[in-house]
Amino acid sequence: MKIDFKHEITLRVRYSETDQMGYCYHGNYAQYFEVSRVETLRHLGVSYKHIEEQGFMLPVAELSIKYKSPAKYDDALRIQTRMVEMKGARLEFDYTILNEDGKIISTAQTTLVFVAKGTMRPTPPPNSFVKLVQPHEQK
Amino acid sequence: MKIDFKHEITLRVRYSETDQMGYCYHGNYAQYFEVSRVETLRHLGVSYKHIEEQGFMLPVAELSIKYKSPAKYDDALRIQTRMVEMKGARLEFDYTILNEDGKIISTAQTTLVFVAKGTMRPTPPPNSFVKLVQPHEQK
Amino acid sequence: MKIDFKHEITLRVRYSETDQMGYCYHGNYAQYFEVSRVETLRHLGVSYKHIEEQGFMLPVAELSIKYKSPAKYDDALRIQTRMVEMKGARLEFDYTILNEDGKIISTAQTTLVFVAKGTMRPTPPPNSFVKLVQPHEQK
Amino acid sequence: MKIDFKHEITLRVRYSETDQMGYCYHGNYAQYFEVSRVETLRHLGVSYKHIEEQGFMLPVAELSIKYKSPAKYDDALRIQTRMVEMKGARLEFDYTILNEDGKIISTAQTTLVFVAKGTMRPTPPPNSFVKLVQPHEQK
Repeated sequence: MKIDFKHEITLRVRYSETDQMGYCYHGNYAQYFEVSRVETLRHLGVSYKHIEEQGFMLPVAELSIKYKSPAKYDDALRIQTRMVEMKGARLEFDYTILNEDGKIISTAQTTLVFVAKGTMRPTPPPNSFVKLVQPHEQK
Repeated sequence: MKIDFKHEITLRVRYSETDQMGYCYHGNYAQYFEVSRVETLRHLGVSYKHIEEQGFMLPVAELSIKYKSPAKYDDALRIQTRMVEMKGARLEFDYTILNEDGKIISTAQTTLVFVAKGTMRPTPPPNSFVKLVQPHEQK
Repeated sequence: MKIDFKHEITLRVRYSETDQMGYCYHGNYAQYFEVSRVETLRHLGVSYKHIEEQGFMLPVAELSIKYKSPAKYDDALRIQTRMVEMKGARLEFDYTILNEDGKIISTAQTTLVFVAKGTMRPTPPPNSFVKLVQPHEQK
Repeated sequence: MKIDFKHEITLRVRYSETDQMGYCYHGNYAQYFEVSRVETLRHLGVSYKHIEEQGFMLPVAELSIKYKSPAKYDDALRIQTRMVEMKGARLEFDYTILNEDGKIISTAQTTLVFVAKGTMRPTPPPNSFVKLVQPHEQK
């Protein structure tokens, strides 16, 4: 099922997240995408915390990032997240990071997989989740 | 019980651990102390992983750090750890970090507390642990 | 000079910041205090970024943390920061972290030192900074 | 120029690197690849620190990771790194992470770009670097 559900958050680069190049360390972006993804889910109507409490987990299976421009300390980055597809146990998101001037810092894709907490085997998403997503199907 | 059990590890400052001051970010030292503490326990004869598998956890209750000199990217830091006291559920460690030139980078103390995994309440350490520590009592 | 200048921020525990105990990893608190300190300075009227651009840095010289209760994933923590003293090159802050239920998670103190970027030697704070602080002297 | 230069390091998963799923947090792998890349360069005969001191930087332009199996706390991971191509300013590496049982944890690719420190513009690698790489050209 193709989906079109978007959300944007703003997140400041922390001092701890810079490196001696004077930029935000590239490895921190995975964290930023996750923070943004969690807020996107919350905006959809579900907390990721609640998904885990229901006995599901949603680990990342694939992550792909392009670094276009460096982000700097104290930049208030805009992280745009779009849920783009749900297929079986898989859930796909696209991301764009912009700085305050609207310059593209990074683009990325992730594939997540619903797994059952006990077995860690892929499993379809909970019905309550599917119901929240369906109104955002892209036709 | 006063203890004197020492161990030293060497650990290189990762690029991700630097900040835009060009130094190792001060917040990373807590991680370094932990890595060193875990290796000190392994040297004593027990893996921290095994302690958790036995149903205990050992969270940090107090941490105090003095930063004397900056550590830099790629420095091979020597982290000296000393188990200094075990009293009830509490376990105390002292740390000194030196760089390759023998310069003191940091000194620190931590207090850890044995807790039972189910209740998260303080609890005396497992007997197997006490037996490993006893030969190192400082008299 | 004794100071009384307070500020509070709210900050959510990220998934990346949890550990396998199921709690916020204790080593992340240093980052939280820094984020809160930077926002406290911004509230006072100065960005830390600007302090560095003026040729000063403000490294942490001492950090002391007491962990009272665990913080959990997705907790919206309240971080209360108070600038308490400025003396020569030194600047002291106190912190209290509370969770959404008002429970105290942690208390901490840090000592920072103004240094000149070129020499990395302690130096009195810039005049513009002193002027911002003076109205908050505690008498 | 196609290259075939391999190196392997072993790196233990730190407690701070686990998350509440009980696994190594997926965002930490970028750090692991970097640590391994730096050791691969050292094995080739150059320290990354020295590359920066010569006025070059080597930021990551693209990163792509597949997560096959979870890594756990205290696992001694084997990180295999292969320099596979150098073309203009670009340098490509492939990675495989294995656990102690030889199970594949992750595979990844990165593209790095040599840039001049002053301008941050792409630039061919320093001659000294090219000379170290040439003997490992894949024919």
